[in-house]
Amino acid sequence: MNIPRTSYPRVVIIGGGFAGIALAKKLSKQEVQVVLLDKHNYHTFQPLLYQVSTGGLEPDSIAYPIRKILKDFPNFYFRLAHVQEINTQKNKLKTDIGNLKFDYLVVASGSQTNYFGHSEIEKYSMAMKTIPQSLNLRSLILENFEEALLTSDLNERNALMNFVIVGGGPTGVELAGALAEIKKGILPKDYPDLDTRMAQIHIIQAGDCILKGMSSKASEKAEEFLEKLGVNIWKNIRVTNYDGNMVTTNSDLTFETATLIWAAGVKGSIIKGVDGEALVTRGNRLLVNEFNQVKGFNHVFAIGDVAAMVTADRPNGFPMMAQPAIQQGEQLGNNLLRIIEGKPMKPFTYKDKGAMATIGRNKAVVDLKRFKFQGIFAWYVWMFVHLFFLIGFRNRMVVFVNWVYNYIRFDREARLIIRPFKRKS
Amino acid sequence: MNIPRTSYPRVVIIGGGFAGIALAKKLSKQEVQVVLLDKHNYHTFQPLLYQVSTGGLEPDSIAYPIRKILKDFPNFYFRLAHVQEINTQKNKLKTDIGNLKFDYLVVASGSQTNYFGHSEIEKYSMAMKTIPQSLNLRSLILENFEEALLTSDLNERNALMNFVIVGGGPTGVELAGALAEIKKGILPKDYPDLDTRMAQIHIIQAGDCILKGMSSKASEKAEEFLEKLGVNIWKNIRVTNYDGNMVTTNSDLTFETATLIWAAGVKGSIIKGVDGEALVTRGNRLLVNEFNQVKGFNHVFAIGDVAAMVTADRPNGFPMMAQPAIQQGEQLGNNLLRIIEGKPMKPFTYKDKGAMATIGRNKAVVDLKRFKFQGIFAWYVWMFVHLFFLIGFRNRMVVFVNWVYNYIRFDREARLIIRPFKRKS
Repeated sequence: MNIPRTSYPRVVIIGGGFAGIALAKKLSKQEVQVVLLDKHNYHTFQPLLYQVSTGGLEPDSIAYPIRKILKDFPNFYFRLAHVQEINTQKNKLKTDIGNLKFDYLVVASGSQTNYFGHSEIEKYSMAMKTIPQSLNLRSLILENFEEALLTSDLNERNALMNFVIVGGGPTGVELAGALAEIKKGILPKDYPDLDTRMAQIHIIQAGDCILKGMSSKASEKAEEFLEKLGVNIWKNIRVTNYDGNMVTTNSDLTFETATLIWAAGVKGSIIKGVDGEALVTRGNRLLVNEFNQVKGFNHVFAIGDVAAMVTADRPNGFPMMAQPAIQQGEQLGNNLLRIIEGKPMKPFTYKDKGAMATIGRNKAVVDLKRFKFQGIFAWYVWMFVHLFFLIGFRNRMVVFVNWVYNYIRFDREARLIIRPFKRKS
Repeated sequence: MNIPRTSYPRVVIIGGGFAGIALAKKLSKQEVQVVLLDKHNYHTFQPLLYQVSTGGLEPDSIAYPIRKILKDFPNFYFRLAHVQEINTQKNKLKTDIGNLKFDYLVVASGSQTNYFGHSEIEKYSMAMKTIPQSLNLRSLILENFEEALLTSDLNERNALMNFVIVGGGPTGVELAGALAEIKKGILPKDYPDLDTRMAQIHIIQAGDCILKGMSSKASEKAEEFLEKLGVNIWKNIRVTNYDGNMVTTNSDLTFETATLIWAAGVKGSIIKGVDGEALVTRGNRLLVNEFNQVKGFNHVFAIGDVAAMVTADRPNGFPMMAQPAIQQGEQLGNNLLRIIEGKPMKPFTYKDKGAMATIGRNKAVVDLKRFKFQGIFAWYVWMFVHLFFLIGFRNRMVVFVNWVYNYIRFDREARLIIRPFKRKS
């Protein structure tokens, strides 16, 4: 890769997610050279992917060009690349666009869907971790309804209109709520010649509650909201297989559906070369110390979803969510500057800003440190926080306009099959 | 296709473009059953496709779900289908989702890119007639700039940064202007480590002027605007081949480029079964009379781009643009209602509302019947008219927000490679 060597030390960041971008911003306008590598040329605001899938938002509104975020930073280089291997002896990366030397390496490669070895589920189910995946899900949902119109086989038609979501975390809950609102408000108008009341939305949850990471009040209220919207919640049930039509579970329960959304777990996206003794089996993450140094290295760091900072009170590391990623990115930025200035690093301390999830119109649950609340005010807080964390004035404005429109009109306009998932156009 | 037969006559419309939608709207809430078939579930506002390609607008802002346009019309049926053949003896259509009988058939299938038999150009060039095509072009442009960073071969790098647009009609002119503004305002900031001044934008025009359908004043002024923006215009030159790298012409002139955009012509998208004596060789359109009846038929009509209504003063029919399509759709709607009521049809009369094209910031040309003007006022008129003709309040708002933002910030934010065109992500 033809990136000029300067007298500044070179920090290579793998991944432009919340962690990588927060770090790069901290290092901007400092005496370091920063090279950020990502396989996309944009940063994705993952918390709103479910709104792309359900036609409430446009994909571009929740994505932001990485080059633009860091355009005023003279020592910043971005390259669109897949990192294939890390050589920690020679301080070198192998990528699909050539090799690259580093002085400090930061693995911020995030996470990917974890199928826990279920290869058939991986083959037939839909995931929602990237924008292309979310668009595929949007297309599939709409294609299925068009197809439901064509069949006279009642079982087949119902299977095309059923949705099974595996996993009752924020992704599963928010998607289920959005689908329920579409079922109620949009499908009867769009498909007057289809009995859309037959459409069913199921959440299958292996544990005994949904929104496990949140308070029991939030979990209970979310369940109540979902049930009011007509979503069926199945707890303490594990999905064992899916063949593209039938979902089987560890109980007698089976579901016929053309759409299984797998939101049951994620695992760290680790890269060959730092997967030795640092690898934590649970979650496929890299073990890091309180400075985010990967176990066994001084100059290789990991932040965000891919890093497992295991402490006494957090035996599984921090949750794989935006806040720990952003805070670790910022803290590592400060620490790298301290290293370069010859000062000692400071350990990472996590400021828990709480958690929230939205279920639908006027329905959200918010857990803050001191306050826990649910309902319409929580929903406003949820919207405000998400608008605030979106990058870019235009994205905020466009998302705001869409939300106001969707709220007033009980509508979601982006129900477009731009790239058909099933068949060629 | 399981569409119930009622006592109302059934009008089947092939295509949800400007013509098909205008017709369907006229027939809404009347005593006819309307079945609209399209291979997309959305209507595309084609005049703004070039803004999708150049990252100024999001694809969903210029598309609108067809089901939503006609959702309050009880006798309306939409089906996502490819029509394969028309049987005019049996009044039957063959589609990929089954057969369909009709009482009246309206072919509104629009037009497609015309390569005039150049199969190699078809293989290697980019077109801009559909949203997926426009998104592919957007991805390719951005991918090429990322790739230009990686090569040390100067010729290769320049080829990756050059754009050759074949055709100086509105599409070619508007695209060239947008690319020129990107070159000037965005590339230097996004690619500080690339000499983006080397990027070149060429329009190759077979005739002796650009914007041929407009006034000579508009044509001259558009040329002046483009040249001010640094676009090279080559007139009276015909492209003879393109192998993915080198453009050859009927002169000594050659161009090295990784991106050839073919905007040199369109042809009617005709369908097997009504392509007999009605077929007009020039433009591949269907010959219709003043009632839009396809030659040789009483109950088969064609409107919009695919219809050639040849008159003494219009030997090639109406231009293949939005206005004739909309007006023919509306007029045919009235005529079909008259037929059903047993009244005689009225011949089509075209109200020429003028033509316009935008070249860039504060730069547009407008030809109205009485007034022809160019410059900043023309640009405002262009924007107002395009916002007005967009379907849907949300689309108008979102486009407006984007335009205001782009204007104030000299920016285009949607420069995202969501679906890479060249390589897999």
